[in-house]
Amino acid sequence: MKSVLGYETVDFDREHHALVIVDQTKLPGELAFLSLRSPQEIWDAIYHLKVRGAPAIGVAAAFGLAAIGWQIAADSPADFMMQLSRHREYLCSARPTAVNLGWALNRVYGACENLLSRKLDQAEGMPEMEKVQRLREGLLQEAKRMKEEDIDICKRIGEHGLDLLKPGDGILTHCNAGQLATCRYGTATAPIYLGQERGYGFHVYVDETRPLMQGARLTAYELQAAGVDATLLCDNMAASLMAQEKVQAVLVGCDRVAANGDVANKIGTSMLAITAWHHQIPFYVCAPLSTIDWNTATGKEIEIEERPPEEVTQMWYRQPMCPPGVKVYNPAFDVTSYLLIDGYITELGVFSTLEEIPGCYLQSDKR
Amino acid sequence: MKSVLGYETVDFDREHHALVIVDQTKLPGELAFLSLRSPQEIWDAIYHLKVRGAPAIGVAAAFGLAAIGWQIAADSPADFMMQLSRHREYLCSARPTAVNLGWALNRVYGACENLLSRKLDQAEGMPEMEKVQRLREGLLQEAKRMKEEDIDICKRIGEHGLDLLKPGDGILTHCNAGQLATCRYGTATAPIYLGQERGYGFHVYVDETRPLMQGARLTAYELQAAGVDATLLCDNMAASLMAQEKVQAVLVGCDRVAANGDVANKIGTSMLAITAWHHQIPFYVCAPLSTIDWNTATGKEIEIEERPPEEVTQMWYRQPMCPPGVKVYNPAFDVTSYLLIDGYITELGVFSTLEEIPGCYLQSDKR
Repeated sequence: MKSVLGYETVDFDREHHALVIVDQTKLPGELAFLSLRSPQEIWDAIYHLKVRGAPAIGVAAAFGLAAIGWQIAADSPADFMMQLSRHREYLCSARPTAVNLGWALNRVYGACENLLSRKLDQAEGMPEMEKVQRLREGLLQEAKRMKEEDIDICKRIGEHGLDLLKPGDGILTHCNAGQLATCRYGTATAPIYLGQERGYGFHVYVDETRPLMQGARLTAYELQAAGVDATLLCDNMAASLMAQEKVQAVLVGCDRVAANGDVANKIGTSMLAITAWHHQIPFYVCAPLSTIDWNTATGKEIEIEERPPEEVTQMWYRQPMCPPGVKVYNPAFDVTSYLLIDGYITELGVFSTLEEIPGCYLQSDKR
Repeated sequence: MKSVLGYETVDFDREHHALVIVDQTKLPGELAFLSLRSPQEIWDAIYHLKVRGAPAIGVAAAFGLAAIGWQIAADSPADFMMQLSRHREYLCSARPTAVNLGWALNRVYGACENLLSRKLDQAEGMPEMEKVQRLREGLLQEAKRMKEEDIDICKRIGEHGLDLLKPGDGILTHCNAGQLATCRYGTATAPIYLGQERGYGFHVYVDETRPLMQGARLTAYELQAAGVDATLLCDNMAASLMAQEKVQAVLVGCDRVAANGDVANKIGTSMLAITAWHHQIPFYVCAPLSTIDWNTATGKEIEIEERPPEEVTQMWYRQPMCPPGVKVYNPAFDVTSYLLIDGYITELGVFSTLEEIPGCYLQSDKR
């Protein structure tokens, strides 16, 4: 499958030891790349959604921790690990809802711990500073591996998702679970891009996704770049479209799946799922297995990030859109009940409940 | 009940024979009044939503036709009526979905016809030009009567609606069915304003209402002016709010009610009704009887106005919100099934189906 955009969403600059991302808050008007090295810069980029989408956040955080590794002045591996752990916690605080963020940071950190305890601690005679340097390289290796895996996972989600669709289908999507939310292909867009390559002729409807307009700014931009037939709509128009039988399936990504199958995703997802259910249109969540949080029993336990009112009231506007001082409700995510979800499209296949996922009972005793 | 804003939404300037409206596209940033006399100006004001909301459109069109009456150069009552009829049809074409527009225009026109056939035609010896002048005055009289009636209807809707609510309730509303959509008090806001006067302490949640932001720009502004506790949200956040049990009732206005009870209202209403149904929250439509179109059997027959893509993609934005040239779906209204509506709040009381309305069987043979 081809890459849709001529650049990488998330990358590592070996020469400058920097995380490189495309600044998604500038799209589609401007294509600007950011080279980030300091913990504060990387935290800011995640918090301000310059990089966003659960899989992309995960890989960016991993590359980001690797970049920070090169900034850490440590005189021993233990000192390095201690400082690294602090930075890991700091980065993790940027977005509380995305489970991938913590998962990715723990994974690269854990890879370093393993490298240290299983290899370097046994390497008698190796200078302390060389051990530190090997830890830096180990961190980067693991981050690169995660990126390759993400690309592979998206490809597989594309194949499994495409099995659920027919040529000519109308597909509705919300927010951006596209190439820009991952390392390549996207999750919810992967079946669309694959279908496009194979001549399925999908009609894709894109929720603009208030307040931050990720659908309008990012998904419509990606789909257009890929030559997909895309139509933009306001989020509140989905029911009208469904009533006209123009939508045969809804595909969305997710930020976190609880162990019972409840899904936290971009605000508006649950309303869309309720609307699809009402119109008997299948609603699919594209979920790499890493987004499943087996330690969270249900969606009720998922902490939902509340974001500043200005995102709703003024961020994009050239004139006042509401009276000054009005109160604003601005949750970044909502929880969609597992009862409304027809299938979870994962890298291992499509499952109608999480119980069907091989080995799921090994994952947690909370189930 | 007090007027919420210190000015009239719709009025007639006797001295200049002009329709006077507040330009709602400028709110809340600027309070600008427009004095309109030519058919083209009046049509434009309705088409471009400078005046909007079914009841306000009706009264504005009636005053507008009266203003045009003074511009008509006619040498006989028959000539006057012929020209008036053409202007009536022209104004009626500005917004196809709002049944009040045609209803109001036909009513003032019909009042003129009656005046002519029952009185003026019998007035032997009255000069032709005086008859024309009396028709102009008759037109204005009827328009003024409609305004008074609208104010009275909104008051009654307020009383009947308040019976359905409890002190401290959370109330969600969509678009603007407020004072700015009527001559005074509003329809969906009338129970809220009345409750406010009586110390009910409602918490009102206001859908911003994409694409034209009538909730953010107009409803939040009105409610704030009235001292109501108001919170703004994006349309796609309503399900999240309902899942937290913060909403005890949804109140919306309507543009047209079909004879089976289906309701055409601002785009997003049907999605909200589906979401309220899913959460078992009562969904009420505030509907002056004039919005019931007994000659339209079901919502399927209601023509839905499609509006320009720029309203979605650039109208309010200071930077590109989507890639250039993307297709846009932009219906102004949608149809909410009668099955999702718990009650119609009218000036005669609250009815759970239209069949309960006194005399409904006299209205049409389509039922």
